[in-house]
Amino acid sequence: MTRSADIRVAVSTVILTLRRGDDGPPVLALPLVRRTREPFAERWALPGGWLTPEESPVDAAARTLAETTGLAPTYLEQLYAFGAVDRSPTRVVSIVYWALLRQDDVEAQITAHRASGRAPENVEWFDVDDLPALAFDHHEIIEYALWRLRNKVGYSRVAQGFLPAEFTLAELREAYESILGRALDPANFRRQVESAGNLIRTDRFRTGSHRPARLYRDDTDLELADRGPLRPEETRTR
Amino acid sequence: MTRSADIRVAVSTVILTLRRGDDGPPVLALPLVRRTREPFAERWALPGGWLTPEESPVDAAARTLAETTGLAPTYLEQLYAFGAVDRSPTRVVSIVYWALLRQDDVEAQITAHRASGRAPENVEWFDVDDLPALAFDHHEIIEYALWRLRNKVGYSRVAQGFLPAEFTLAELREAYESILGRALDPANFRRQVESAGNLIRTDRFRTGSHRPARLYRDDTDLELADRGPLRPEETRTR
Repeated sequence: MTRSADIRVAVSTVILTLRRGDDGPPVLALPLVRRTREPFAERWALPGGWLTPEESPVDAAARTLAETTGLAPTYLEQLYAFGAVDRSPTRVVSIVYWALLRQDDVEAQITAHRASGRAPENVEWFDVDDLPALAFDHHEIIEYALWRLRNKVGYSRVAQGFLPAEFTLAELREAYESILGRALDPANFRRQVESAGNLIRTDRFRTGSHRPARLYRDDTDLELADRGPLRPEETRTR
Repeated sequence: MTRSADIRVAVSTVILTLRRGDDGPPVLALPLVRRTREPFAERWALPGGWLTPEESPVDAAARTLAETTGLAPTYLEQLYAFGAVDRSPTRVVSIVYWALLRQDDVEAQITAHRASGRAPENVEWFDVDDLPALAFDHHEIIEYALWRLRNKVGYSRVAQGFLPAEFTLAELREAYESILGRALDPANFRRQVESAGNLIRTDRFRTGSHRPARLYRDDTDLELADRGPLRPEETRTR
């Protein structure tokens, strides 16, 4: 009797990392998968697939992400359920998850995946400022993820999610600049970060081609996921 | 081929208001609907129903909310998509929306609904501290909504969502106390609110049985909904 059986449920994942090139500022980047079937065959899309009856949405997101990209983040946060009537040629509600990963974690996970003989196919990482034409409403989903990321930056330690455990203030500022899409005054930034009081000065310094820069670290573990009192099967990847 | 057709999509709504009795502190309350069918016949449940192919999830949430309770909030924010495998006897993903309403708005909307001859049936308002046995995982959904509400209070003007346009500091403190579930020191609360600088002192006073208390108002419109750059059909009720 209910016509909700005509609606299918899919999952997709937005994995953001801060990609550091040889020179120039770091850039936000994410993996996309080239579709091999209609609709939108040959177009790039977020990693994802159908929700099956035996798995929770977050498990489906983790499974499809691992199958397509080899990535296995320890948690995925639910971003939003997208369900506009016209977002797909057939009626599909997509529950979208996201995670921020450090570039070295990304590389380690992909290397481990390759070592197991399951090299990801049809996957490429794109800078968010230079995306190809995308399938479905995936442009809109990415735009929403970036908007949420910019909103988080204001009151949380979200930028550290992209950085190694110890980082210089310049590296932290560059992460903020990449997320916000604008330059920040270095002296003001240093003052604000130091007065916020959630960074710990270490006794170590980054040395290299420039003069040594002090390394900082967070004073607590980063807790990015918006889990609250949810059951583990709602949030945790297997 | 895809087995996602075995999964159905429903919507539910958590409508929170601050119910002010004749005396005593105000309490958080929400409307529940008594189920008339299996599963969980006779149990109380959040207002909701099936998503139909012709409507977006937020439209379905607004429609089922109006049908069952007579309430018609101007916007609904997406709370979370609940999809644990065992949350219902059949496999159902529920996209849950929420809104904070002022008690006078609630009463005006119910009065208008009654005047149109469609008195809501099987609906009752319950204090969140005194809920009956609920259908499905609706206890968990409400617990999550209250957790999100408590988290919002820390850094936003969410408590004002429950208050009239002008309010005393004691009324604002009572709203915070109801949400947080603990007493706040009146002098500290006043200092914090005044130093935060997002309230405007009016020249008006609340008079009555106590000594006159100055009325305050927000300096900007309350923007509770987490909309971001989403399309209107993802967020706005018709």
